[in-house]
Amino acid sequence: MSKIDSETIAFAHRLADVSGAVIRPYFRAPIDVDAKAAMINGKPIFDPVTEADKGAERAIRAVIEEARPDDGILGEEYGEKPSRNGLCWVLDPVDGTRAFINGRHEWGTLISLERDGVPVLGMIDQPWLRERFFSVNGASTFHEKGKVTPLRVRACAALSDALLCATTPEAFPKLGPGAWDAFGRVEDKVKLTRWGGDCYIFATLVMGFCDLIVESLSKRWDISALIPLVEAAGGVITDWQGAAPGNGGGVVAAGDRRVHEQALKLLNP
Amino acid sequence: MSKIDSETIAFAHRLADVSGAVIRPYFRAPIDVDAKAAMINGKPIFDPVTEADKGAERAIRAVIEEARPDDGILGEEYGEKPSRNGLCWVLDPVDGTRAFINGRHEWGTLISLERDGVPVLGMIDQPWLRERFFSVNGASTFHEKGKVTPLRVRACAALSDALLCATTPEAFPKLGPGAWDAFGRVEDKVKLTRWGGDCYIFATLVMGFCDLIVESLSKRWDISALIPLVEAAGGVITDWQGAAPGNGGGVVAAGDRRVHEQALKLLNP
Repeated sequence: MSKIDSETIAFAHRLADVSGAVIRPYFRAPIDVDAKAAMINGKPIFDPVTEADKGAERAIRAVIEEARPDDGILGEEYGEKPSRNGLCWVLDPVDGTRAFINGRHEWGTLISLERDGVPVLGMIDQPWLRERFFSVNGASTFHEKGKVTPLRVRACAALSDALLCATTPEAFPKLGPGAWDAFGRVEDKVKLTRWGGDCYIFATLVMGFCDLIVESLSKRWDISALIPLVEAAGGVITDWQGAAPGNGGGVVAAGDRRVHEQALKLLNP
Repeated sequence: MSKIDSETIAFAHRLADVSGAVIRPYFRAPIDVDAKAAMINGKPIFDPVTEADKGAERAIRAVIEEARPDDGILGEEYGEKPSRNGLCWVLDPVDGTRAFINGRHEWGTLISLERDGVPVLGMIDQPWLRERFFSVNGASTFHEKGKVTPLRVRACAALSDALLCATTPEAFPKLGPGAWDAFGRVEDKVKLTRWGGDCYIFATLVMGFCDLIVESLSKRWDISALIPLVEAAGGVITDWQGAAPGNGGGVVAAGDRRVHEQALKLLNP
Protein backbone atom coordinates (compact mmCIF):
# COMPACT_ATOMS: atom_id res chain seq x y z
CA MET A 1 0.00 0.00 0.00
CA SER A 2 1.34 3.41 -0.90
CA LYS A 3 2.11 5.79 1.91
CA ILE A 4 -0.08 8.75 2.73
CA ASP A 5 1.72 11.83 1.46
CA SER A 6 2.80 14.75 3.61
CA GLU A 7 0.29 17.11 1.98
CA THR A 8 -2.58 14.87 3.01
CA ILE A 9 -1.16 14.54 6.54
CA ALA A 10 -0.91 18.33 6.85
CA PHE A 11 -4.47 18.60 5.54
CA ALA A 12 -5.70 16.20 8.25
CA HIS A 13 -4.08 18.36 10.93
CA ARG A 14 -5.71 21.41 9.36
CA LEU A 15 -9.13 19.78 9.61
CA ALA A 16 -8.62 19.18 13.33
CA ASP A 17 -7.41 22.77 13.81
CA VAL A 18 -10.50 24.13 12.05
CA SER A 19 -12.81 21.86 14.03
CA GLY A 20 -11.23 22.75 17.38
CA ALA A 21 -11.58 26.47 16.71
CA VAL A 22 -15.32 25.98 16.16
CA ILE A 23 -15.80 23.75 19.20
CA ARG A 24 -13.77 25.52 21.89
CA PRO A 25 -16.11 28.51 22.49
CA TYR A 26 -19.01 26.12 23.19
CA PHE A 27 -17.24 24.10 25.89
CA ARG A 28 -18.39 25.12 29.38
CA ALA A 29 -20.73 27.71 27.90
CA PRO A 30 -24.51 27.39 27.95
CA ILE A 31 -25.40 25.32 24.89
CA ASP A 32 -28.53 24.08 23.19
CA VAL A 33 -28.82 20.36 23.55
CA ASP A 34 -31.24 18.53 21.27
CA ALA A 35 -32.44 15.10 22.25
CA LYS A 36 -32.60 12.67 19.37
CA ALA A 37 -35.53 10.31 19.47
CA ALA A 38 -33.33 7.26 19.94
CA MET A 39 -34.78 4.31 21.83
CA ILE A 40 -33.14 1.21 23.26
CA ASN A 41 -35.37 -1.55 24.65
CA GLY A 42 -38.26 0.88 24.67
CA LYS A 43 -36.44 3.38 26.85
CA PRO A 44 -35.45 6.77 25.45
CA ILE A 45 -31.72 7.34 25.28
CA PHE A 46 -30.54 10.88 25.66
CA ASP A 47 -28.20 11.41 22.71
CA PRO A 48 -27.29 15.09 22.72
CA VAL A 49 -26.30 16.90 19.59
CA THR A 50 -24.61 20.13 20.33
CA GLU A 51 -24.21 23.15 18.19
CA ALA A 52 -20.49 22.55 18.58
CA ASP A 53 -20.78 19.17 16.91
CA LYS A 54 -22.86 20.45 14.00
CA GLY A 55 -20.83 23.63 13.52
CA ALA A 56 -17.53 21.78 13.50
CA GLU A 57 -18.79 19.21 10.99
CA ARG A 58 -20.02 21.99 8.71
CA ALA A 59 -16.61 23.70 8.95
CA ILE A 60 -14.66 20.52 8.23
CA ARG A 61 -16.92 19.66 5.29
CA ALA A 62 -16.49 23.13 3.82
CA VAL A 63 -12.70 22.83 3.96
CA ILE A 64 -12.71 19.37 2.35
CA GLU A 65 -15.18 20.36 -0.37
CA GLU A 66 -13.14 23.44 -1.24
CA ALA A 67 -9.68 21.84 -1.24
CA ARG A 68 -10.31 18.20 -2.13
CA PRO A 69 -13.65 18.02 -3.97
CA ASP A 70 -13.17 14.40 -5.08
CA ASP A 71 -12.76 13.04 -1.53
CA GLY A 72 -15.82 11.49 0.07
CA ILE A 73 -17.15 12.55 3.49
CA LEU A 74 -19.01 10.50 6.09
CA GLY A 75 -20.15 12.44 9.16
CA GLU A 76 -22.50 11.88 12.05
CA GLU A 77 -24.59 14.98 11.50
CA TYR A 78 -24.71 15.54 7.76
CA GLY A 79 -24.51 12.07 6.24
CA GLU A 80 -22.41 10.74 3.38
CA LYS A 81 -20.93 12.39 0.31
CA PRO A 82 -19.70 9.61 -2.00
CA SER A 83 -16.02 9.51 -2.89
CA ARG A 84 -14.87 9.89 -6.49
CA ASN A 85 -11.29 8.74 -5.82
CA GLY A 86 -11.53 5.97 -3.21
CA LEU A 87 -10.67 8.33 -0.34
CA CYS A 88 -13.23 9.22 2.33
CA TRP A 89 -13.00 11.37 5.46
CA VAL A 90 -14.92 9.92 8.39
CA LEU A 91 -15.87 12.50 11.04
CA ASP A 92 -17.25 12.78 14.54
CA PRO A 93 -16.36 16.27 15.78
CA VAL A 94 -17.63 15.73 19.35
CA ASP A 95 -17.38 12.09 20.38
CA GLY A 96 -18.41 12.01 24.03
CA THR A 97 -21.23 14.53 23.98
CA ARG A 98 -22.27 13.48 27.50
CA ALA A 99 -18.86 14.43 28.86
CA PHE A 100 -19.00 17.67 26.87
CA ILE A 101 -22.34 18.83 28.26
CA ASN A 102 -21.17 17.73 31.72
CA GLY A 103 -18.22 20.16 31.51
CA ARG A 104 -15.67 17.35 31.53
CA HIS A 105 -12.65 16.92 29.25
CA GLU A 106 -13.16 13.32 28.20
CA TRP A 107 -14.54 14.00 24.74
CA GLY A 108 -12.64 14.32 21.49
CA THR A 109 -12.79 14.95 17.78
CA LEU A 110 -12.48 11.81 15.68
CA ILE A 111 -11.18 12.18 12.14
CA SER A 112 -10.06 9.36 9.90
CA LEU A 113 -9.20 8.96 6.26
CA GLU A 114 -10.30 5.71 4.64
CA ARG A 115 -8.90 4.39 1.36
CA ASP A 116 -11.23 1.90 -0.29
CA GLY A 117 -12.94 1.42 3.07
CA VAL A 118 -9.76 0.84 5.08
CA PRO A 119 -8.73 3.55 7.59
CA VAL A 120 -5.19 4.69 6.75
CA LEU A 121 -5.02 7.81 8.95
CA GLY A 122 -6.77 8.37 12.26
CA MET A 123 -6.77 10.80 15.12
CA ILE A 124 -8.34 11.72 18.41
CA ASP A 125 -8.02 15.48 18.91
CA GLN A 126 -8.85 17.12 22.25
CA PRO A 127 -9.05 20.77 21.28
CA TRP A 128 -9.69 22.15 24.78
CA LEU A 129 -6.60 20.46 26.25
CA ARG A 130 -4.77 20.81 22.90
CA GLU A 131 -3.83 17.14 22.93
CA ARG A 132 -3.73 15.25 19.63
CA PHE A 133 -3.34 11.48 19.23
CA PHE A 134 -2.42 10.94 15.58
CA SER A 135 -1.69 7.92 13.43
CA VAL A 136 -0.54 7.50 9.83
CA ASN A 137 1.84 5.24 7.87
CA GLY A 138 2.31 2.78 10.71
CA ALA A 139 3.24 5.24 13.46
CA SER A 140 1.08 6.71 16.22
CA THR A 141 2.25 9.92 17.86
CA PHE A 142 1.19 12.29 20.64
CA HIS A 143 1.16 16.00 19.79
CA GLU A 144 1.11 18.31 22.81
CA LYS A 145 2.65 21.71 23.63
CA GLY A 146 4.61 21.72 20.37
CA LYS A 147 6.19 18.33 21.06
CA VAL A 148 5.64 15.09 19.16
CA THR A 149 6.32 11.83 21.01
CA PRO A 150 5.72 8.20 20.01
CA LEU A 151 2.64 6.41 21.34
CA ARG A 152 3.15 2.83 22.45
CA VAL A 153 0.90 0.40 24.29
CA ARG A 154 2.29 -1.37 27.38
CA ALA A 155 2.78 -5.08 27.94
CA CYS A 156 0.31 -6.91 30.15
CA ALA A 157 0.46 -10.70 30.20
CA ALA A 158 -2.61 -11.55 32.24
CA LEU A 159 -6.16 -10.29 32.53
CA SER A 160 -5.69 -10.33 36.31
CA ASP A 161 -3.18 -7.47 35.96
CA ALA A 162 -5.24 -5.49 33.45
CA LEU A 163 -6.82 -2.07 33.83
CA LEU A 164 -10.15 -2.26 31.98
CA CYS A 165 -11.99 0.77 30.58
CA ALA A 166 -15.58 1.08 29.38
CA THR A 167 -17.83 4.10 29.02
CA THR A 168 -21.23 3.15 30.40
CA PRO A 169 -23.20 0.04 31.38
CA GLU A 170 -26.12 1.41 29.34
CA ALA A 171 -24.29 0.73 26.07
CA PHE A 172 -24.19 -3.06 26.38
CA PRO A 173 -27.87 -3.96 25.93
CA LYS A 174 -27.50 -2.76 22.32
CA LEU A 175 -25.29 -5.81 21.71
CA GLY A 176 -27.94 -8.29 22.83
CA PRO A 177 -29.39 -9.71 26.04
CA GLY A 178 -26.24 -11.59 27.10
CA ALA A 179 -23.79 -8.76 26.55
CA TRP A 180 -23.92 -7.29 30.05
CA ASP A 181 -23.24 -10.69 31.63
CA ALA A 182 -20.42 -11.29 29.14
CA PHE A 183 -18.88 -7.97 30.11
CA GLY A 184 -19.27 -8.98 33.77
CA ARG A 185 -17.24 -12.16 33.19
CA VAL A 186 -14.34 -10.02 31.95
CA GLU A 187 -14.77 -7.41 34.68
CA ASP A 188 -14.62 -10.10 37.37
CA LYS A 189 -11.14 -11.13 36.19
CA VAL A 190 -9.40 -7.78 35.75
CA LYS A 191 -7.46 -5.88 38.38
CA LEU A 192 -9.39 -2.65 38.03
CA THR A 193 -12.24 -1.15 36.01
CA ARG A 194 -12.59 2.51 35.16
CA TRP A 195 -15.87 3.89 33.74
CA GLY A 196 -16.53 6.87 31.52
CA GLY A 197 -14.40 8.30 28.78
CA ASP A 198 -15.72 7.54 25.27
CA CYS A 199 -12.94 7.92 22.67
CA TYR A 200 -10.57 9.22 25.33
CA ILE A 201 -10.13 5.72 26.77
CA PHE A 202 -8.48 4.75 23.47
CA ALA A 203 -6.05 7.64 23.99
CA THR A 204 -5.12 6.13 27.37
CA LEU A 205 -4.64 2.73 25.71
CA VAL A 206 -2.13 4.08 23.18
CA MET A 207 -0.34 6.07 25.90
CA GLY A 208 0.19 2.81 27.80
CA PHE A 209 -2.08 3.59 30.76
CA CYS A 210 -4.90 1.18 29.97
CA ASP A 211 -4.71 -2.52 29.07
CA LEU A 212 -8.15 -3.44 27.83
CA ILE A 213 -11.24 -1.75 26.42
CA VAL A 214 -14.54 -3.60 26.07
CA GLU A 215 -17.01 -1.28 24.46
CA SER A 216 -20.16 -1.00 22.41
CA LEU A 217 -19.82 1.69 19.76
CA SER A 218 -22.56 2.94 17.51
CA LYS A 219 -21.35 3.86 14.10
CA ARG A 220 -18.45 3.86 11.68
CA TRP A 221 -17.43 7.38 12.77
CA ASP A 222 -17.03 6.15 16.37
CA ILE A 223 -14.62 3.41 15.30
CA SER A 224 -12.75 4.28 12.09
CA ALA A 225 -10.18 6.71 13.53
CA LEU A 226 -9.37 4.37 16.40
CA ILE A 227 -8.24 1.44 14.24
CA PRO A 228 -4.97 2.87 12.84
CA LEU A 229 -4.29 4.65 16.12
CA VAL A 230 -4.43 1.44 18.18
CA GLU A 231 -2.75 -0.83 15.62
CA ALA A 232 0.20 1.48 14.90
CA ALA A 233 0.79 1.87 18.66
CA GLY A 234 1.21 -1.91 18.87
CA GLY A 235 -2.27 -2.79 20.07
CA VAL A 236 -5.08 -4.93 18.72
CA ILE A 237 -8.64 -3.85 18.03
CA THR A 238 -11.46 -6.15 16.89
CA ASP A 239 -15.14 -6.75 17.40
CA TRP A 240 -16.31 -9.06 20.23
CA GLN A 241 -15.77 -12.10 18.00
CA GLY A 242 -12.20 -11.20 17.01
CA ALA A 243 -13.01 -9.93 13.50
CA ALA A 244 -12.19 -6.47 12.13
CA PRO A 245 -14.39 -3.82 13.76
CA GLY A 246 -17.27 -2.93 11.51
CA ASN A 247 -19.71 -0.10 11.24
CA GLY A 248 -20.92 -0.28 14.80
CA GLY A 249 -21.27 -2.85 17.55
CA GLY A 250 -18.90 -4.46 19.99
CA VAL A 251 -15.26 -3.41 20.14
CA VAL A 252 -12.46 -5.09 22.10
CA ALA A 253 -9.10 -3.32 22.14
CA ALA A 254 -5.99 -4.30 24.07
CA GLY A 255 -2.40 -3.24 24.37
CA ASP A 256 -1.24 -6.84 24.61
CA ARG A 257 -2.52 -9.72 22.43
CA ARG A 258 -2.53 -12.08 25.41
CA VAL A 259 -5.04 -9.96 27.29
CA HIS A 260 -7.11 -9.57 24.12
CA GLU A 261 -7.28 -13.37 23.67
CA GLN A 262 -8.25 -13.94 27.30
CA ALA A 263 -11.00 -11.33 27.06
CA LEU A 264 -12.42 -12.83 23.84
CA LYS A 265 -12.62 -16.28 25.48
CA LEU A 266 -14.71 -14.87 28.32
CA LEU A 267 -16.93 -12.87 25.97
CA ASN A 268 -17.56 -15.97 23.80
CA PRO A 269 -17.50 -18.95 26.19
CA MET B 1 -18.64 32.82 62.94
CA SER B 2 -15.58 34.90 62.28
CA LYS B 3 -14.28 35.09 58.73
CA ILE B 4 -11.19 33.24 57.61
CA ASP B 5 -8.42 35.84 57.29
CA SER B 6 -6.53 36.59 54.10
CA GLU B 7 -3.29 35.16 55.46
CA THR B 8 -4.93 31.78 56.00
CA ILE B 9 -6.51 31.91 52.56
CA ALA B 10 -3.13 32.63 50.95
CA PHE B 11 -1.65 29.79 52.99
CA ALA B 12 -4.29 27.38 51.65
CA HIS B 13 -3.39 28.35 48.08
CA ARG B 14 0.28 27.83 48.94
CA LEU B 15 -0.45 24.29 50.15
CA ALA B 16 -2.11 23.45 46.82
CA ASP B 17 0.80 24.99 44.91
CA VAL B 18 3.31 22.90 46.86
CA SER B 19 1.25 19.74 46.44
CA GLY B 20 0.80 20.26 42.70
CA ALA B 21 4.53 20.73 42.16
CA VAL B 22 5.16 17.35 43.80
CA ILE B 23 2.40 15.54 41.91
CA ARG B 24 2.83 16.85 38.34
CA PRO B 25 6.03 14.93 37.46
CA TYR B 26 4.35 11.62 38.34
CA PHE B 27 1.32 12.07 36.08
CA ARG B 28 1.63 10.01 32.89
CA ALA B 29 5.03 8.72 33.99
CA PRO B 30 5.67 5.12 35.04
CA ILE B 31 4.78 4.95 38.73
CA ASP B 32 4.83 2.38 41.51
CA VAL B 33 1.33 1.46 42.48
CA ASP B 34 0.77 -0.31 45.79
CA ALA B 35 -2.41 -2.23 46.41
CA LYS B 36 -3.86 -1.78 49.87
CA ALA B 37 -5.36 -4.90 51.42
CA ALA B 38 -8.89 -3.50 51.38
CA MET B 39 -11.78 -5.93 51.05
CA ILE B 40 -15.45 -5.37 50.34
CA ASN B 41 -17.83 -8.30 50.59
CA GLY B 42 -14.87 -10.66 50.51
CA LYS B 43 -13.56 -9.25 47.23
CA PRO B 44 -10.28 -7.36 47.17
CA ILE B 45 -10.58 -3.75 46.12
CA PHE B 46 -7.67 -2.28 44.26
CA ASP B 47 -6.95 0.98 46.08
CA PRO B 48 -3.72 2.34 44.64
CA VAL B 49 -1.47 4.61 46.58
CA THR B 50 0.95 6.39 44.38
CA GLU B 51 4.24 7.95 45.23
CA ALA B 52 2.64 11.20 44.09
CA ASP B 53 0.00 10.94 46.79
CA LYS B 54 2.47 10.17 49.56
CA GLY B 55 5.06 12.72 48.43
CA ALA B 56 2.51 15.51 48.17
CA GLU B 57 1.08 14.76 51.61
CA ARG B 58 4.57 14.81 53.12
CA ALA B 59 5.27 18.16 51.45
CA ILE B 60 2.00 19.72 52.62
CA ARG B 61 2.52 18.44 56.16
CA ALA B 62 6.03 19.87 56.25
CA VAL B 63 4.78 23.31 55.21
CA ILE B 64 1.98 23.29 57.81
CA GLU B 65 4.23 22.06 60.61
CA GLU B 66 6.82 24.72 59.87
CA ALA B 67 4.46 27.68 59.46
CA ARG B 68 1.46 26.82 61.63
CA PRO B 69 2.60 24.29 64.25
CA ASP B 70 -0.60 24.51 66.32
CA ASP B 71 -2.89 23.53 63.44
CA GLY B 72 -3.99 19.90 63.30
CA ILE B 73 -3.57 17.71 60.19
CA LEU B 74 -5.68 14.79 59.00
CA GLY B 75 -4.40 13.04 55.87
CA GLU B 76 -5.11 9.81 54.05
CA GLU B 77 -1.56 8.53 54.10
CA TYR B 78 0.00 9.73 57.33
CA GLY B 79 -2.88 9.87 59.80
CA GLU B 80 -3.90 12.56 62.27
CA LYS B 81 -1.92 15.20 64.12
CA PRO B 82 -4.22 16.65 66.81
CA SER B 83 -5.02 20.37 66.67
CA ARG B 84 -4.02 22.69 69.51
CA ASN B 85 -6.14 25.62 68.35
CA GLY B 86 -9.34 24.11 66.95
CA LEU B 87 -8.11 24.32 63.33
CA CYS B 88 -7.35 21.20 61.31
CA TRP B 89 -6.22 20.74 57.69
CA VAL B 90 -7.86 17.76 56.02
CA LEU B 91 -5.92 16.40 53.01
CA ASP B 92 -6.22 14.01 50.10
CA PRO B 93 -3.52 14.98 47.59
CA VAL B 94 -4.65 12.54 44.88
CA ASP B 95 -8.37 11.85 45.07
CA GLY B 96 -9.16 9.70 42.06
CA THR B 97 -6.09 7.48 42.02
CA ARG B 98 -7.74 5.18 39.44
CA ALA B 99 -8.06 8.08 37.00
CA PHE B 100 -4.49 9.11 37.78
CA ILE B 101 -2.94 5.72 37.01
CA ASN B 102 -5.17 5.52 33.93
CA GLY B 103 -3.57 8.71 32.55
CA ARG B 104 -6.85 10.64 32.78
CA HIS B 105 -7.40 14.12 34.19
CA GLU B 106 -10.35 13.44 36.46
CA TRP B 107 -8.45 13.38 39.74
CA GLY B 108 -7.77 16.26 42.08
CA THR B 109 -6.18 17.45 45.27
CA LEU B 110 -8.64 17.93 48.14
CA ILE B 111 -7.68 20.36 50.87
CA SER B 112 -10.01 21.68 53.54
CA LEU B 113 -9.63 23.64 56.75
CA GLU B 114 -11.95 22.63 59.57
CA ARG B 115 -12.67 24.81 62.60
CA ASP B 116 -13.97 22.78 65.54
CA GLY B 117 -14.89 20.00 63.12
CA VAL B 118 -16.74 22.22 60.63
CA PRO B 119 -15.13 22.77 57.20
CA VAL B 120 -14.73 26.53 56.64
CA LEU B 121 -12.46 26.45 53.57
CA GLY B 122 -12.37 23.82 50.85
CA MET B 123 -10.86 23.26 47.46
CA ILE B 124 -10.47 20.86 44.58
CA ASP B 125 -7.20 21.59 42.83
CA GLN B 126 -6.33 19.98 39.48
CA PRO B 127 -2.60 20.70 39.21
CA TRP B 128 -2.09 19.16 35.76
CA LEU B 129 -4.82 21.29 34.16
CA ARG B 130 -4.09 24.15 36.61
CA GLU B 131 -7.75 24.45 37.52
CA ARG B 132 -8.67 25.31 41.11
CA PHE B 133 -12.17 25.21 42.60
CA PHE B 134 -11.95 27.19 45.85
CA SER B 135 -14.36 28.11 48.60
CA VAL B 136 -14.10 30.29 51.70
CA ASN B 137 -16.27 32.79 53.59
CA GLY B 138 -19.44 31.90 51.69
CA ALA B 139 -18.09 32.25 48.15
CA SER B 140 -16.92 29.55 45.73
CA THR B 141 -14.65 30.62 42.89
CA PHE B 142 -12.92 29.10 39.87
CA HIS B 143 -9.24 29.94 39.43
CA GLU B 144 -7.86 29.28 35.95
CA LYS B 145 -5.30 30.97 33.69
CA GLY B 146 -4.92 33.88 36.14
CA LYS B 147 -8.67 34.59 36.18
CA VAL B 148 -11.04 34.18 39.12
CA THR B 149 -14.74 33.68 38.33
CA PRO B 150 -17.71 32.87 40.58
CA LEU B 151 -18.94 29.29 40.77
CA ARG B 152 -22.69 28.83 40.81
CA VAL B 153 -24.88 25.75 40.52
CA ARG B 154 -27.69 25.74 37.95
CA ALA B 155 -31.42 25.44 38.52
CA CYS B 156 -33.10 22.11 37.78
CA ALA B 157 -36.66 21.65 38.94
CA ALA B 158 -37.23 17.98 38.19
CA LEU B 159 -35.25 14.78 38.45
CA SER B 160 -36.40 13.97 34.91
CA ASP B 161 -34.27 16.87 33.63
CA ALA B 162 -31.25 16.08 35.78
CA LEU B 163 -27.77 15.02 34.73
CA LEU B 164 -26.62 12.50 37.36
CA CYS B 165 -22.97 11.72 38.12
CA ALA B 166 -21.46 8.83 40.06
CA THR B 167 -17.98 7.33 40.00
CA THR B 168 -18.39 3.56 39.96
CA PRO B 169 -21.05 0.92 40.62
CA GLU B 170 -18.50 -0.90 42.81
CA ALA B 171 -18.73 1.78 45.50
CA PHE B 172 -22.36 1.16 46.44
CA PRO B 173 -22.15 -2.26 48.13
CA LYS B 174 -20.18 -0.52 50.91
CA LEU B 175 -23.43 1.26 51.87
CA GLY B 176 -25.36 -1.98 52.38
CA PRO B 177 -27.16 -4.62 50.33
CA GLY B 178 -29.98 -2.33 49.13
CA ALA B 179 -27.81 0.58 48.04
CA TRP B 180 -27.34 -0.48 44.42
CA ASP B 181 -31.10 -0.90 43.95
CA ALA B 182 -31.70 2.45 45.64
CA PHE B 183 -29.26 4.10 43.25
CA GLY B 184 -31.07 2.38 40.38
CA ARG B 185 -34.39 3.95 41.41
CA VAL B 186 -32.79 7.39 41.05
CA GLU B 187 -30.97 6.51 37.85
CA ASP B 188 -34.23 5.34 36.25
CA LYS B 189 -35.74 8.81 36.75
CA VAL B 190 -32.95 11.09 35.57
CA LYS B 191 -32.36 12.33 32.05
CA LEU B 192 -28.77 11.16 31.79
CA THR B 193 -26.14 9.39 33.90
CA ARG B 194 -22.40 9.93 33.56
CA TRP B 195 -19.93 7.56 35.25
CA GLY B 196 -16.40 8.15 36.49
CA GLY B 197 -14.88 11.27 37.92
CA ASP B 198 -14.34 11.07 41.70
CA CYS B 199 -13.98 14.57 43.18
CA TYR B 200 -14.07 16.11 39.72
CA ILE B 201 -17.81 15.48 39.45
CA PHE B 202 -18.28 17.96 42.32
CA ALA B 203 -16.33 20.50 40.27
CA THR B 204 -18.85 20.03 37.45
CA LEU B 205 -21.70 20.49 39.94
CA VAL B 206 -20.41 23.86 41.13
CA MET B 207 -19.72 24.94 37.54
CA GLY B 208 -23.39 24.30 36.73
CA PHE B 209 -22.88 21.33 34.39
CA CYS B 210 -24.20 18.59 36.66
CA ASP B 211 -27.46 18.49 38.64
CA LEU B 212 -27.13 15.55 40.99
CA ILE B 213 -24.40 13.39 42.52
CA VAL B 214 -25.21 10.16 44.33
CA GLU B 215 -22.00 8.76 45.67
CA SER B 216 -20.42 6.54 48.28
CA LEU B 217 -17.30 8.15 49.70
CA SER B 218 -14.86 6.53 52.06
CA LYS B 219 -13.40 8.94 54.54
CA ARG B 220 -13.49 12.43 55.97
CA TRP B 221 -10.76 13.57 53.57
CA ASP B 222 -12.95 12.57 50.60
CA ILE B 223 -15.82 14.74 51.81
CA SER B 224 -14.64 17.67 53.93
CA ALA B 225 -13.40 19.98 51.14
CA LEU B 226 -16.54 19.41 49.10
CA ILE B 227 -18.98 20.71 51.72
CA PRO B 228 -18.10 24.44 51.65
CA LEU B 229 -17.47 24.28 47.91
CA VAL B 230 -20.96 22.95 47.15
CA GLU B 231 -22.82 25.01 49.75
CA ALA B 232 -21.23 28.35 48.86
CA ALA B 233 -22.00 27.72 45.19
CA GLY B 234 -25.68 27.46 46.12
CA GLY B 235 -25.95 23.68 46.24
CA VAL B 236 -26.89 21.18 48.91
CA ILE B 237 -24.80 18.24 50.13
CA THR B 238 -25.94 15.66 52.67
CA ASP B 239 -25.71 11.95 53.39
CA TRP B 240 -28.30 9.58 51.88
CA GLN B 241 -30.69 10.33 54.77
CA GLY B 242 -30.49 14.11 54.42
CA ALA B 243 -28.17 14.74 57.39
CA ALA B 244 -24.80 16.48 57.27
CA PRO B 245 -22.21 14.32 55.50
CA GLY B 246 -20.09 12.50 58.02
CA ASN B 247 -16.74 10.79 58.02
CA GLY B 248 -17.54 8.44 55.14
CA GLY B 249 -20.56 6.81 53.59
CA GLY B 250 -23.30 7.96 51.29
CA VAL B 251 -23.30 11.46 49.83
CA VAL B 252 -26.07 13.17 47.86
CA ALA B 253 -25.28 16.56 46.35
CA ALA B 254 -27.47 18.65 44.10
CA GLY B 255 -27.46 22.09 42.55
CA ASP B 256 -31.18 22.51 43.19
CA ARG B 257 -32.96 21.57 46.45
CA ARG B 258 -35.94 20.21 44.53
CA VAL B 259 -33.82 17.58 42.80
CA HIS B 260 -32.13 16.78 46.10
CA GLU B 261 -35.49 16.17 47.79
CA GLN B 262 -36.74 13.98 44.94
CA ALA B 263 -33.55 11.90 45.04
CA LEU B 264 -33.75 11.40 48.83
CA LYS B 265 -37.34 10.15 48.53
CA LEU B 266 -36.25 7.48 46.04
CA LEU B 267 -33.20 6.50 48.10
CA ASN B 268 -35.37 6.14 51.26
CA PRO B 269 -38.80 4.97 50.05
